[in-house]
Amino acid sequence: MKQLVTYLLAGLCCTTAFANTPKNIIMIVGDGMGPAYTTAYRMFADNASTPAVESTVFDRMLVGMASTHPDFSDGYVTDSAAGATALSSGVKTYNGAIGVDLDKKSVQTVLELAKKQGRKTGIAVTSQINHATPAGFSAHNESRHNYNEIADSYFDNRIEGKFVLDVMLGGGWKYFKREDRNLVNEFQQAGYQYIDDMANLSKVKVGKPLLGLFGDKGVPWALDFKHKNRLPILAKTAVKHLENDKGFFLLIEASQIDWAGHANDVAAAMAEMHDLALTLQWLENYVLKNPDTLVVLTADHSTGGLTIGARGVYDWVPDATKALKMSPEKIAQQLLPSKQRWTLASELLGFEVSQDELQSIITADTHKTMHRAICKIIDNRSNTGWTTSGHTGVDVPVFAIGAGSENFIGHSDNTDIAKKMFALLKAR
Amino acid sequence: MKQLVTYLLAGLCCTTAFANTPKNIIMIVGDGMGPAYTTAYRMFADNASTPAVESTVFDRMLVGMASTHPDFSDGYVTDSAAGATALSSGVKTYNGAIGVDLDKKSVQTVLELAKKQGRKTGIAVTSQINHATPAGFSAHNESRHNYNEIADSYFDNRIEGKFVLDVMLGGGWKYFKREDRNLVNEFQQAGYQYIDDMANLSKVKVGKPLLGLFGDKGVPWALDFKHKNRLPILAKTAVKHLENDKGFFLLIEASQIDWAGHANDVAAAMAEMHDLALTLQWLENYVLKNPDTLVVLTADHSTGGLTIGARGVYDWVPDATKALKMSPEKIAQQLLPSKQRWTLASELLGFEVSQDELQSIITADTHKTMHRAICKIIDNRSNTGWTTSGHTGVDVPVFAIGAGSENFIGHSDNTDIAKKMFALLKAR
Repeated sequence: MKQLVTYLLAGLCCTTAFANTPKNIIMIVGDGMGPAYTTAYRMFADNASTPAVESTVFDRMLVGMASTHPDFSDGYVTDSAAGATALSSGVKTYNGAIGVDLDKKSVQTVLELAKKQGRKTGIAVTSQINHATPAGFSAHNESRHNYNEIADSYFDNRIEGKFVLDVMLGGGWKYFKREDRNLVNEFQQAGYQYIDDMANLSKVKVGKPLLGLFGDKGVPWALDFKHKNRLPILAKTAVKHLENDKGFFLLIEASQIDWAGHANDVAAAMAEMHDLALTLQWLENYVLKNPDTLVVLTADHSTGGLTIGARGVYDWVPDATKALKMSPEKIAQQLLPSKQRWTLASELLGFEVSQDELQSIITADTHKTMHRAICKIIDNRSNTGWTTSGHTGVDVPVFAIGAGSENFIGHSDNTDIAKKMFALLKAR
Repeated sequence: MKQLVTYLLAGLCCTTAFANTPKNIIMIVGDGMGPAYTTAYRMFADNASTPAVESTVFDRMLVGMASTHPDFSDGYVTDSAAGATALSSGVKTYNGAIGVDLDKKSVQTVLELAKKQGRKTGIAVTSQINHATPAGFSAHNESRHNYNEIADSYFDNRIEGKFVLDVMLGGGWKYFKREDRNLVNEFQQAGYQYIDDMANLSKVKVGKPLLGLFGDKGVPWALDFKHKNRLPILAKTAVKHLENDKGFFLLIEASQIDWAGHANDVAAAMAEMHDLALTLQWLENYVLKNPDTLVVLTADHSTGGLTIGARGVYDWVPDATKALKMSPEKIAQQLLPSKQRWTLASELLGFEVSQDELQSIITADTHKTMHRAICKIIDNRSNTGWTTSGHTGVDVPVFAIGAGSENFIGHSDNTDIAKKMFALLKAR
């Protein structure tokens, strides 16, 4: 990187580079969003009536790539917890670690430093708000699986006497309204507004801290959300509630790209990517109006070994991913008890299911096999490939716009991204 | 891109950007080198005795990524011919097209413009020199499969009365020494030096044009080459013979990364990547000493759907790719007639073949099944995934150093890379 910067500076004749420090930082994680996802999304979003393949908001924002491996003791493929900890704290750790190092000691995160400096802080995610990625920025725990402890820490921990997060939007009823502890009540008693219906988000008053939970674990799939765009709503609300003279740090996560990848569900993945793209388009305009804001987007890792083209065929045809009436997971739920699977499948998928394709739908006898059957049909029609139900180690793209974005040009390790954000926070 | 540049310029406070034009352009294509290849190479090259994963020359040079789709009439996955034509001419065309557009009309390439401007031109590749990528910069033909016609055109075509290429290094006896035409003799009679042994490359005199052919089709695999590094030798020789006051344009191709990808042969792929990395390390120093040189590296597409990790396991272990005595293809040749396959396999692979692994080696009865068996053993040990014997559509990384390299920051379409090189050639 050092060498690259030298070359670039030689070319760009600058003397005062990197003096541009942001008041607000919006860090976005596309969980599982390796390079095949951003590329496939361009094809998914392509206007087929023009010869050009239209560039996307991702293309406009791309500045580099990042390596994602966890601490060397855990090999070369990261999970979301170690990935989030690297991106939030600059520290390599073991898979499963939430904001702690190899010795299970807490490490400071960029979100915590921002809070300490007097900035407001928030998270807006489509997973439960105590899932690995948001937790990696806002909590410290030896294991991502200690969901209740992590949820508790959002209430119990303080930074300079203040709550860690001023705004929390995502899912998580299961962990925040428990028999042993009702964190929603506790937050409300401490002065937080609480909301559990996204339709009412616009009615919430600015000026008071905000907790919004919209699902037992994650919020519904983008494909199952009425307007197919819930991340932009969460992101806009978070920004509106965080804006203040001292600035803010907001973590946004398109959490369910990863969940679609784990399920090898390309249709759900593309809808989640679209949800993220709409969020970025709004943020592009936000940065134009608020040039003192930095937006950095990357992924923690890639998921599923997604490939655009497979089985020796030189093509990828996303049509079958475009007309679904709901998520493949929900289609599977509806098909399972149906006595008219052929008609219903064609209706819900938005294309005529062939007699060959029908066989796997007829024989599926569990929700899992039905979901697999639907995804396989879409994979075959689109010529999509997968190699794993888990993560892969490929470098991920890095995107940045706004104040200080030039720091993210070129290759970064995931820990470098945190280090650069720390430096930008400290420089202002 | 336009928007990105605006952001960057805002951050970098420049008024005279892009005034830095190169005298020499070295364009490098890593054929088939998608992002999983450059990432896997970092792990392959990692010094296991240190906790850090050392960054590579690719990391130091990374500036962005590129989309690779061919003309929309041919879908979203390109072949090397359309890819080379896009990178050389800025024109999207059909798969198989060599320097021609959709109407099969010739399109000017950056190499041809450089020649027209008085620069010297050359190609240094590990495929036959008339293979799709070098041909896409140096010839025009409706089909990449017309190898003889393309070879003929290297002698028959003229640019401003001069031969297209001053230096040609790679493979291709089959096409240049034919029964119907001996192009080697013709080139020699026209004043070219000819050489067919790489060991003698350093003895060739500077000042006369040069044809060097070192294989019937491609040159041997890096793993089968004595010093495991033949591309650096070809590249250095080419540069030495091209240097002159008016500048040069050189196309270098690490052709056989793609061939390894087609064979789903990760060990051969990593050795080819190492060969390219050594070339880049030499070029880094060259650019430091010759800052009026631009080096741009990208891939035409990715091959094989390579993934780092597969089958649900969060790991990638390149050890089994590191100790081979020769290429898996050659190991297969040696194992097939052997009566002591177990001992010989362990010796040639550089690790103890297990009893389970031995089964596939014992039962293999053709060169192809034996090669597959060996690659499968290495895939299982390393946890490598593949989805295709062909190409995939994922965006590829873009690397640049030297004069004008700042133009390649961010996302480019493959055609943009040619357009930027045209602009740089014309600006000087």
